[in-house]
Amino acid sequence: MSEPPRPPNKRTTIYQVALEAGVAPSTVSRAFSRPSRVNADTAERIRQVAERLGYRTSPLARALTTSRTRIVALVIADISNPVFTEMVRGAQEAANDADYTTVLIDAQESDRLERTALERALPSVDGIVLASSRMSDSTIRWFSKQRPVVVLNRAIPDVPCVVTDNPQGARRAAEHLAELGHDHITYVSGPEASWANGIRWRSLLEACIELKLKVRRIGPFSPNIEGGETAVEELRRRPTTAVLTYNDLMAIGLIRGLDRLGAKVPADISVIAFDNIVVGEIVTPRLTTVAAPLFAEGAAATKHLLTMIDGAPARTGQPMVLPVRLVVRDSTARRRTGR
Amino acid sequence: MSEPPRPPNKRTTIYQVALEAGVAPSTVSRAFSRPSRVNADTAERIRQVAERLGYRTSPLARALTTSRTRIVALVIADISNPVFTEMVRGAQEAANDADYTTVLIDAQESDRLERTALERALPSVDGIVLASSRMSDSTIRWFSKQRPVVVLNRAIPDVPCVVTDNPQGARRAAEHLAELGHDHITYVSGPEASWANGIRWRSLLEACIELKLKVRRIGPFSPNIEGGETAVEELRRRPTTAVLTYNDLMAIGLIRGLDRLGAKVPADISVIAFDNIVVGEIVTPRLTTVAAPLFAEGAAATKHLLTMIDGAPARTGQPMVLPVRLVVRDSTARRRTGR
Repeated sequence: MSEPPRPPNKRTTIYQVALEAGVAPSTVSRAFSRPSRVNADTAERIRQVAERLGYRTSPLARALTTSRTRIVALVIADISNPVFTEMVRGAQEAANDADYTTVLIDAQESDRLERTALERALPSVDGIVLASSRMSDSTIRWFSKQRPVVVLNRAIPDVPCVVTDNPQGARRAAEHLAELGHDHITYVSGPEASWANGIRWRSLLEACIELKLKVRRIGPFSPNIEGGETAVEELRRRPTTAVLTYNDLMAIGLIRGLDRLGAKVPADISVIAFDNIVVGEIVTPRLTTVAAPLFAEGAAATKHLLTMIDGAPARTGQPMVLPVRLVVRDSTARRRTGR
Repeated sequence: MSEPPRPPNKRTTIYQVALEAGVAPSTVSRAFSRPSRVNADTAERIRQVAERLGYRTSPLARALTTSRTRIVALVIADISNPVFTEMVRGAQEAANDADYTTVLIDAQESDRLERTALERALPSVDGIVLASSRMSDSTIRWFSKQRPVVVLNRAIPDVPCVVTDNPQGARRAAEHLAELGHDHITYVSGPEASWANGIRWRSLLEACIELKLKVRRIGPFSPNIEGGETAVEELRRRPTTAVLTYNDLMAIGLIRGLDRLGAKVPADISVIAFDNIVVGEIVTPRLTTVAAPLFAEGAAATKHLLTMIDGAPARTGQPMVLPVRLVVRDSTARRRTGR
């Protein structure tokens, strides 16, 4: 064991490693290709012998000679929603900096698929970030007992959480609409299983009470373009001059649907969304939206997770709250007086 | 072993399982939470005892009592490109139908990150789909010797591949532009490491020779909105009336960039792209594009992978080619005569 490693030597064969480790060549092979099928002590002994003899099968062998898996699982609610792209990028940057690899699990807006995928991946991962999880609090708590877990966009007691300042965002949206002369705001709901949807609605309600605006809620609708298009039907029956949608994709669908009916945004109806995804800037009209620091969310959650993997205590109690800002673009305008 | 399983019994404890299996309670716990750290035979014995006694720790324990991992890894070149969303959905549907879970690896357009992530995930996965891989042919071949691998959007000898009919797509684009009176097409290149970029350019070149159109290539540029915006600088120095871009995102960036310079699409310049991502339909002008069957690509690659995991031979030789079609929308128009 105190012998210094020999320089890599092309002639070192699997048979020499097997002989020295006192195992069959097939066991050496398995120790590198399927380590879970080899007794952990044996695998470790084989790795040590292989390293000492300068035996390298391949890049894989090199990867496996570092004994840690070093994988963070990032679970996102829906890969088709670009809101997760920047979060993923932030998480990846934090993970890459610490030499961790990120694998992604797309929950497809299904708590069942989310749980199954996570159960299967669990044995291979060192920690988990759950972004906009649709699983129940108790299921999340259960996972947090198996591996370090940080939750993003949701607050759960006893589990470390990173959220954005939804109350401030809803308030800024309401103030902006009030300044433009609107006195009645319709909130277009996203999924009921979304914690963020609940707090956005309640925060808007509180802001409107304070600002003496009328407010109502329609939905829930799917948190995507189709969901926004569907919501138009309900808006048609109960007209409005100002809308706050659960997210940007719904706003894009809503504006398309209104356009087909001949209602113009922002001339007839002002629309504000949440998130600030890239596509909100390339559609016409460009979206006014409550911008969340998406990259910073992913990075903050992952950095905290990595400290937990290294043994630091989980930061439970109050969630970490990241600031938001209202980005005013072209989908909001002064309310028309008279019609 | 022939004793029938007892019905689940809440009173069965970890201690009873440990006693019956002849191991420490901590080993029982580890057999369920970290099976790779327990000798495989011991873990199997513990699972059998646990099953017989009706011992269930949790959903995880249930998942682990099925001995297969049942995970397919899907590697995508760049999660921020929505072209991969539909491919992921197709792969997920095929995997879900066969009771496999999909984990995603985002290569971030880096062959190094792609390789590292895949090496780390390899021990935990049953098979791999590589979508638009940026790794070298030899690295991909190496992985294909460790696990079943199917490659998407790229042709590599000896590895099963699923591609789209890029020659047909480039030809239809050239024909459409020729019909509109354009006699000179500029191809805006994506990344050099992209196999699809190479074949799209060569196919356009061949089609233009046949159709007696002039053709040139500029780039390479990043395969995203910024890359398209950057390309505008070069177009400005060498004006054109018709452009084919490597993908939809580049076309969106190009159109934005041209708009800032006062050049209108399609009045001044016609633009055709490849892919048919959802956002191409919500931008103004809506994109004319060579539509790939993205969902079918992901599904076909994954279905073939699953047969390989089940022991069927890999389908090498000619790649599986899926058809494309030209979707004509608003970004192409008749060439203006005179200026």
